[in-house]
Amino acid sequence: MTEPRPRFTDLVQGLPATIPFVGPEALERRRGRGFELRLGANESAFGLSPLAAEAIRRELARAAWYGDPEAFELCRRLAALHGVAVDEIVIGAGIDELLGVLVRAVTSPGDPVVTSDGAYPTFNYHVTGFGGRLVTVPYRDDHEDPEGLASAVRREGARLVYLANPDNPMGSWHAAPVIQRFLAALPADVLVLLDEAYVEFAPADAAPPIDTADPRVVRLRTFSKAHGMAGLRIGYAIAHAAVIQAMGKIRNHFGVSRIAQAAAMASLDDPGFVAGVVAEVARGRDEYAELAARLDFRALPSATNFVAIDVDPGNGGSAHSQKLLEALATAGVFIRRPGIAPLDRCIRVSVGTAPERARFADILTGIVRAQ
Amino acid sequence: MTEPRPRFTDLVQGLPATIPFVGPEALERRRGRGFELRLGANESAFGLSPLAAEAIRRELARAAWYGDPEAFELCRRLAALHGVAVDEIVIGAGIDELLGVLVRAVTSPGDPVVTSDGAYPTFNYHVTGFGGRLVTVPYRDDHEDPEGLASAVRREGARLVYLANPDNPMGSWHAAPVIQRFLAALPADVLVLLDEAYVEFAPADAAPPIDTADPRVVRLRTFSKAHGMAGLRIGYAIAHAAVIQAMGKIRNHFGVSRIAQAAAMASLDDPGFVAGVVAEVARGRDEYAELAARLDFRALPSATNFVAIDVDPGNGGSAHSQKLLEALATAGVFIRRPGIAPLDRCIRVSVGTAPERARFADILTGIVRAQ
Repeated sequence: MTEPRPRFTDLVQGLPATIPFVGPEALERRRGRGFELRLGANESAFGLSPLAAEAIRRELARAAWYGDPEAFELCRRLAALHGVAVDEIVIGAGIDELLGVLVRAVTSPGDPVVTSDGAYPTFNYHVTGFGGRLVTVPYRDDHEDPEGLASAVRREGARLVYLANPDNPMGSWHAAPVIQRFLAALPADVLVLLDEAYVEFAPADAAPPIDTADPRVVRLRTFSKAHGMAGLRIGYAIAHAAVIQAMGKIRNHFGVSRIAQAAAMASLDDPGFVAGVVAEVARGRDEYAELAARLDFRALPSATNFVAIDVDPGNGGSAHSQKLLEALATAGVFIRRPGIAPLDRCIRVSVGTAPERARFADILTGIVRAQ
Repeated sequence: MTEPRPRFTDLVQGLPATIPFVGPEALERRRGRGFELRLGANESAFGLSPLAAEAIRRELARAAWYGDPEAFELCRRLAALHGVAVDEIVIGAGIDELLGVLVRAVTSPGDPVVTSDGAYPTFNYHVTGFGGRLVTVPYRDDHEDPEGLASAVRREGARLVYLANPDNPMGSWHAAPVIQRFLAALPADVLVLLDEAYVEFAPADAAPPIDTADPRVVRLRTFSKAHGMAGLRIGYAIAHAAVIQAMGKIRNHFGVSRIAQAAAMASLDDPGFVAGVVAEVARGRDEYAELAARLDFRALPSATNFVAIDVDPGNGGSAHSQKLLEALATAGVFIRRPGIAPLDRCIRVSVGTAPERARFADILTGIVRAQ
């Protein structure tokens, strides 16, 4: 009995069987062996704050209880931190979940949605999943192009636009005035998803002041990167209360783990830990830049916890990055590269611990010298 | 600058600002003080398996890593446990999240969706959130009415129907043959969400054999109840591979915590722990039944980790349950009652630990004696 099947919606029926990313565990299963270095998912190599780990151990006694669906204590902490009201914040199981809710809130089938060509695949996945029509704008000199994005929004009458600052996968960033000019160039009825997952690693002038009086702008932040909690699934959105309220009509209210809420609050109590992570990531980026220079590659300036390395400077093709990616995988190194030309001339390497960086340097150097 | 706002979809714009449940933490904030007894959310009073707690402590070293989006090792364990293929299982952040994905997969705006009047509010929340039109069938003698549900599906041409077995909020259940007759009475192109969140607490004959050859049926299971992991957010669906594949087109692939995956696997390694929880819950149900009898109430037979107690037998009104609920809250006890008449003549009490049950008995008896 395989036919007839349940009638999925036309939209779902028509979607490709795609996923935004193949996880490293799936790659390991395909290879039949593990990776020695896991530097492909921009996870933190520096783990949890000891205070967060301790909070989790303590909260295990209450792991049988649902988390507060309002995450009120955490929202209150974050509201104070960012100088906004508590009803201008909502917690989600990572930015991925929040992106899904936001796309759903404003996108009807056929609606144009603007993003950069080669930017975050999970955003595109959500847009396609809700029937939106992706309108992509090329990167410009390895940066997302705010002017181009704003033009596309106006041209298409889009109601949704995505911009990551700093950017993934290139690690590039814009200073706040550029973002503010971008916002000024947008119509009044658009929703702007400003993905700041990597903002802790960026220069202080990369983030414009948070202004929840502008109902168009949603700031997306996460505990997955600098706070080292990707495996706990917790992030948040800061926006005008009307946007937070709309999200509350459709979000999965009991979706965020109680453990993660406790860990996030404890990590906020440990700014010294996060500052240490940020400093060590900056050292790691410098090391990767030096490594790239030694190999006649070019590391792109990065404001994130990863570095995009152009492995074929002057040529611009993607053949060498693909070859290196495969050789690195064979040698036990999991990294990724951007998905779209011309970004895919680069490999993208997350900053590991000092020993991981040294080992990566050895392996990459060995591969390049043997070519 | 508050107008114009971002243009939410007509659907979202038209939704009420509602949530499926107000959490106990929110109630505590309103009261200005905590509850002494938390017996209102059908959480486990018996916590995590020690093996699960140990697995979490171990996995904290990798909390900075995303969880496997395929949760392959866990799916493999569950597939073996249930005698299905690994591509017939998908993990989610609890049944709540899986319900949202399933509703979205088959529901277009205006589509009729069938459930029982007074059944799980979060299912209704998702249906409304995706524009479905809820068609509700009354309970019959405090049981969901499979015949009535099947009739409604046929009458309305519904493509989606929800049935919880055992049921929440009444705790009642049907034996497998009743469920099988229900399935036989349904058309070939409907999707049946069989919510078995409480199945571990039910008599062995309550669950029909799992048959993934029937593409209409999705079995929903969770680690939130018997396994004591509501605060970790992990559940799963068992279904025909075509259904799992459709869910894979739209689900949040990186949404389940790595910690939760590790804990779930460890808990599966500890069936003795779960059996102990189930046995203690059965004792607790008996105690609640005796307590009810002493107070001239009537405890409904339950196949879950909670008991619905008719506090006004012979009358059937909801005034007494409301009065008791308020008096219990004043006395520091968090419980809930069903939302719809005539079910709301009952209060619904989760099985606590032995000391919690004794304390609940004292408080309830005191309130009733003082009336």
